[in-house]
Order: sequence, then C-alpha cells, then structure tokens
Amino acid sequence: MRRVEINKDRLWFRLMELGQIGKQISGGVTRYSFTLDESRAKELVTAYMKEAGLVVREDAAGNVIGRREGANPSASVILTGSHIDTVPDGGMFDGALGVLSAIEALQRMNELGIRNAHPIEVIAFTDEEGSRFGFGMIGSRAMAGTLRQEDLEQRDEQGVTIAEAMRTAGLDPQRIGEAAKSPHEVKAYVELHIEQGRVLEKLDEPAGLVTGIAGPLWQQFTLSGQAGHAGATPMYLRRDPMQAATEILSYIYAEAKKFNNAVATVGKLRVLPGGVNVIPGEVQFSLDLRDIDQVERDRLEASIRAFSKQVCEKHGIELQIDLLQRVAPAPSSPVVQEAVAKAGKLAGLPELPRLVSGAGHDGMQFISHWPLGMIFVRSRDGISHNPKEWSSPEDCAAGTEVLFHTLLELANER
Amino acid sequence: MRRVEINKDRLWFRLMELGQIGKQISGGVTRYSFTLDESRAKELVTAYMKEAGLVVREDAAGNVIGRREGANPSASVILTGSHIDTVPDGGMFDGALGVLSAIEALQRMNELGIRNAHPIEVIAFTDEEGSRFGFGMIGSRAMAGTLRQEDLEQRDEQGVTIAEAMRTAGLDPQRIGEAAKSPHEVKAYVELHIEQGRVLEKLDEPAGLVTGIAGPLWQQFTLSGQAGHAGATPMYLRRDPMQAATEILSYIYAEAKKFNNAVATVGKLRVLPGGVNVIPGEVQFSLDLRDIDQVERDRLEASIRAFSKQVCEKHGIELQIDLLQRVAPAPSSPVVQEAVAKAGKLAGLPELPRLVSGAGHDGMQFISHWPLGMIFVRSRDGISHNPKEWSSPEDCAAGTEVLFHTLLELANER
Repeated sequence: MRRVEINKDRLWFRLMELGQIGKQISGGVTRYSFTLDESRAKELVTAYMKEAGLVVREDAAGNVIGRREGANPSASVILTGSHIDTVPDGGMFDGALGVLSAIEALQRMNELGIRNAHPIEVIAFTDEEGSRFGFGMIGSRAMAGTLRQEDLEQRDEQGVTIAEAMRTAGLDPQRIGEAAKSPHEVKAYVELHIEQGRVLEKLDEPAGLVTGIAGPLWQQFTLSGQAGHAGATPMYLRRDPMQAATEILSYIYAEAKKFNNAVATVGKLRVLPGGVNVIPGEVQFSLDLRDIDQVERDRLEASIRAFSKQVCEKHGIELQIDLLQRVAPAPSSPVVQEAVAKAGKLAGLPELPRLVSGAGHDGMQFISHWPLGMIFVRSRDGISHNPKEWSSPEDCAAGTEVLFHTLLELANER
Repeated sequence: MRRVEINKDRLWFRLMELGQIGKQISGGVTRYSFTLDESRAKELVTAYMKEAGLVVREDAAGNVIGRREGANPSASVILTGSHIDTVPDGGMFDGALGVLSAIEALQRMNELGIRNAHPIEVIAFTDEEGSRFGFGMIGSRAMAGTLRQEDLEQRDEQGVTIAEAMRTAGLDPQRIGEAAKSPHEVKAYVELHIEQGRVLEKLDEPAGLVTGIAGPLWQQFTLSGQAGHAGATPMYLRRDPMQAATEILSYIYAEAKKFNNAVATVGKLRVLPGGVNVIPGEVQFSLDLRDIDQVERDRLEASIRAFSKQVCEKHGIELQIDLLQRVAPAPSSPVVQEAVAKAGKLAGLPELPRLVSGAGHDGMQFISHWPLGMIFVRSRDGISHNPKEWSSPEDCAAGTEVLFHTLLELANER
C-alpha cells in the first residue's frame, strides 16, 4: 500500500475544539467524569464519530463506542481509543488524542474506501484518570468485566458516589455488567497516547512502539533506630536510621539501573523528630518500583528487601516494609507489537523506537482478557497533566498514520 | 595525698533538694533564667556556698560566685562550676551537678583544712541552655566579655527581652560589662558535667576526661533537579535530586567515620513535591558536623562540599549550601587535661577514658581567653534534657573526687 496521509488539519481542529470543553482560565482543561462538561465532550465526540461514518452507541458504563463494521461482522473486533476525562487543570492531548486519532484513522479508511475484515471500534472511555473519585479506569474496568458494584460506592469530594453520579448522567449502575465484553469477542486493543515523558524527544522521533505498561509497586519503608543529641553520641555508638536508609537508597538506585525497563522512585521521605542537631529516631520513605516484566520487578523487589534487612540488622535498626499497592505490569502482546512495528514502516517512518509506558492506561485492564498494545506520540519537554502539555500537529499526524496502519494490519491479517 | 572521700550523701541530698525547685508534674524540672524559680535556686546555691565556707557574690550578669581564697589572694583564679537553669521538663543533673560537685569539693577542702595557693571560684552561670530566649550561655559570655548590649534585645515567647528580664531580677543590663574577667585574672576553667551520651556507660567507667567541646557547624543543602512522573521517565533521563542526595549522604557518613572525633548528623530532610509517584524536584537536608579540632572539621567540610558539587554536576542538579551556624570547637587545654588525668589517679580510678563533648557548654566561651577543661560523669542510657536523666550517687561522687583533685592540682602547681 502506498503512503496514506491522514487529514492532519481535521485532526488538529478537533483536538483544539474538544480542548475548549472544560477549559480553565489557566489555559488548562478540567473535565471530570459524569459532569456537564464531560457530557458535552461526549456529544462532540459522537458527532465526530458520525462524520467518520461510524455507528455510535453508549454502553452501560458511559463509554462512547463508534463501530466501523467489518467485511465479516461476526469476526472478533479490534478495539482502539482512549479517554476524554482529564486531571484538574490538565492538557488537551492526554486521552483526547487517542480518541480523535482513532476517529481520524477510521474516517480516512472511509474516505479511501478501504475495507477491513474485522470490525473496528473506537472507544471514548469513561473516567480513566480517577481525578473525581480517586478510582480511575472505570470505563475500561467495566469493559473488562472487572468493575464490581462495590467499586461504585467510591465517593468524590462532595460525597457523591460513582453510582449516584452515573444516575445523574442517565446511566443505571445496576446494569454496569452489560458493558463487559467477553474475551472471544475481541481480537486486540491498541491505543495511541502521548508519551508524557522525554524519551521520544531525546531520540528525536515523532512516535514509538510501547513494549508494555509498567505496573507500579508501592511500598513504605519505616526504619526505627534511636534518637539522640547530635553531639553526645559518637558515630560508632549510633543507631541512626538515616544512615541505614542512605545505604538502602544507594542500593535501590544502583540495582534499578541494572534492569532494562525498571524505574525506582523515592518521592517521599520523612525524618523524625526532625531537628538539625538530633540524630533521627525514625525514617520513613516511599518506594515506587515499576517494570513491564512482573518477574523482573519481583526480582528487584526481593533483592531490595533482602539488602534492606541486612543493612538494618547491621545498624541495629528495626525495619518495617508496608505494601501500599501492587499493580500487575501489562506487557504489550507480540501480535500487536508486530503490527505497530510494521505500521511504522508503512507510515514511512524509520524503525519505531521501543519504549515503556511508566504511566497507567486503560489497556492495563485488558491484560488477562485480550492482546493489547500502544503507540506513543512525542510530548514536548515530557510535560503532561499540565496546561503546557503539547504535541505538535506533525507528530500527532505521524502517530495517527501509525495507528491507521496498525488497525488495518490487525483487522485484515488472518 | 591519700584517697579523699567527698561527702557523697551531702552531695546527693543537695542534688535532690535543688531538683525540687521548678519540679513539674511530669517529674521533670523547668527553671528558666530570671524567673522566681531561678531566684529560689540561686538562694539555695548561695546557702550551700556559705556552708562550704565560700565568700559569695552575684556579678552583673546574675552569675552566683562563691570564692575560696588562695594562700596568694592576688594569684590568678581557678574557675569551676556550671549552670542552674534547665531546658523545659529537663533533668536534675544537667548543670546542677557541676555547681554542687564544685561546692562539695571546696567544702571538703575546708573540712580537711587543705590549703590552695591560687584562689578557687565556683560559679553558677546564668542561662546556659538558652531555653527562654533562644540565646544561651549568657552568664559565661558575660564573664568572657563577649556579651554585647544588642544580645540583650533577644526576646522570650512573651516578648520580654533579656534586658527587661534582667531588670525584673534586680540586675542592671547597662552594667553587663562589669561581669567580664580579664584573661590574666584567670588561670583555668574546669567544669564537671554529666556526659549526656552513652560512651562512659558503654566503657563501664564512672567518669571521663573531656578532650574538647566539639563546635557545631550547621549547613543546609538544597538540591534542585527536575520533578516528573515516576513512570514516565527512565532512570537515565532523570535529574533526581534524591539520587544525588543519597550519594552525598553516603559520602558524609563514610568520611565522618574516618575522623577520630568527628560526628555527622542529618537530622532534617525534606523531599518536594513529596508524592509517592513523583520524581522529586527538590531535596533539602541539614548537616550538623562536629569536631573538637577546627582543622579537622574544616577539612571534612571542604571534602563534603567538593564531593557534593561533583555529584550534583554529574546528575544535572543545582546545589546550594547555606550556612546556618559555625561555632568554633573548644579543645581542652593540655594543662587542664593533665591535671584531670592525674586527679583521676588520685581519686583511685583507673586511667580516665578520654572523650569528646559533642554538646556545648559554658567553657566554650572561654576558648580564646584562658585554658579550659571538663570532667564527664556517666549518664544512664545517655538520656538528658528529659525527666529520666540520671547519674548514680556513686558516679556523681566519683566525678566530684576527680574534680576535687583537679582543682587542687591546678591551684597548687607552680
């Protein structure tokens, strides 16, 4: 197939138009789930889907789904899309680009009279970010069939539950189960998203192939020693948890760097009692470990735990490690990765760089249900969840062309 | 001279009696400077001094001074003593033991008819702790002649200045200069104090010879990097100030341990913005460095600074080091150390262990004025500034016997 150019201006116009809904004085966008702004955004997306010749419906979870029928309507469906909710004062690209690029790809197929064997569905998922209820990926959980009734009892800051908010938006929380797709109905899921990092920018590439979504493992380390006057205790008599913590942190950073895809972040650290001239009695820090490979992450976790115990014993420090959350990583399926790689070539790009998604995305919910994969588009300065979030029209178009070919690859291969 | 036994019971009785003044429900003692409790404590100490046959006066700074005349009244004086103010909810030994042991030593000389060539003065210093005005060592500064009129403008929590508090206590702040002694008037200063640490306890020794008072150097390190999402930035693209801070802390602890008397404490550490899944943008920590040797401390400081710069450059981190305070260390004079060592033998103790005072004491004010030294008495569990502060009657007596002989050594040598 010769090089297909998607309609860059139409895509950009829609991105800018959708970005007006929920726009704040700051220039940022705030679109929470089940609000008037979200409902206006859904209406606009519905209109775009119809322009693209899709058959549109809303499922029981409020996901807006536009379907392009396949030559074989009973064949398993290719899913694509992203979300249209945002974090508070977020950007115009996070989520929105994945929905609009998919609509653009399907509209272009229509215009070019290209047939697809498998049906393709574009989904605008409900509440990926979790900004309103502190509980995200509501639409994709529902589609995976893993959203439970009790999950809908989560409340927003005004005390409104998800179930109540759904009813306000005209949805019946009792019927949430109807949004679930069974694995045999779906062939694959592929999502385009802005990178939200600086890897593609550093490589000077417009788009990349995502090898997996790294699941976060959050732990809290508490080290208890013996507080004391900074002057009155020589180094050899101290049971200083900050010294032990320093050794553990050194190890964590050095070990994480030995792994291909692992990242380790210590974002919180507290020293008690916290006086300049007081040897700490307690140090508490958080550890966020991520990898797309569960085995690797488990190996890293275990080695950190073993080292920490050993260091704390040496220093006479009591160690406690509490689990805050453990999310399974979601490696991209080889089938989808292959389709994306091939699509990159068809789109006229050099071989797509492979990178990891450190942030979570709706696709994670599908890891044990059907094959998944993602395409990343370069983010300026890696900034996201911020009014300054930006990807150029050219990069958005390049990514969309990769998505176009990926969808056709998946929809037409036997 | 054969072994002299001081009156252990009298010393203990006085310690307990003085400890009732300012006693709190908690069992701790709170005696702030220029309060009614402090004035009652001074009256009691004055009475003890008189029982010891001393001539008592109060100087312009409120220091209570008891003098035992020397065979040569015009010879330079040996100073001893400590303070009688306390921290809030403090113990019965910190300060008090130094004053009462000195009184006991001189009373015993009287009882035994021992003559001293040089005069000896016991001083109960005004406000060593600084708990009321956040500005301590008022009495010893005044005696060293380094207390300035503007220092007296420091205010307590009620907004009362030191000058105002002095007037309430019947003192004239304008005359503070009269409390100064000129260096030629003084032969040496020796102070007995509780250790407030665990070194003597660990060595199982009742008393020790203090080789110097380690001056604290307080610095604040601020490391600025680039905050970001914990997932979206691989390790090699991070400018994570916590990683740089970890390398610096590792270096600090390892280096400090290479020095004989140095201690390094990181008692405060802040990570910003402080989210589990956020790569820190800024890390700020305090460093308290102490040594009794200024040259050693300067060398340690310089090497930490050089290493920190290098690490921060490597990580792309901006480094700022702010000085919070720089107090000169006060090494004990060889003359006083020798007298204390000899006194230990005369008191029938094994060779006195040598240790550093990490905490500050009044003697620091005299470092450039006249020779100084200290005797430490074992503290139970190293606890101080706490109602649980404790030294046994036997240890208090043993230390006092060392002080007794030290004073005679200094007062009688040619």
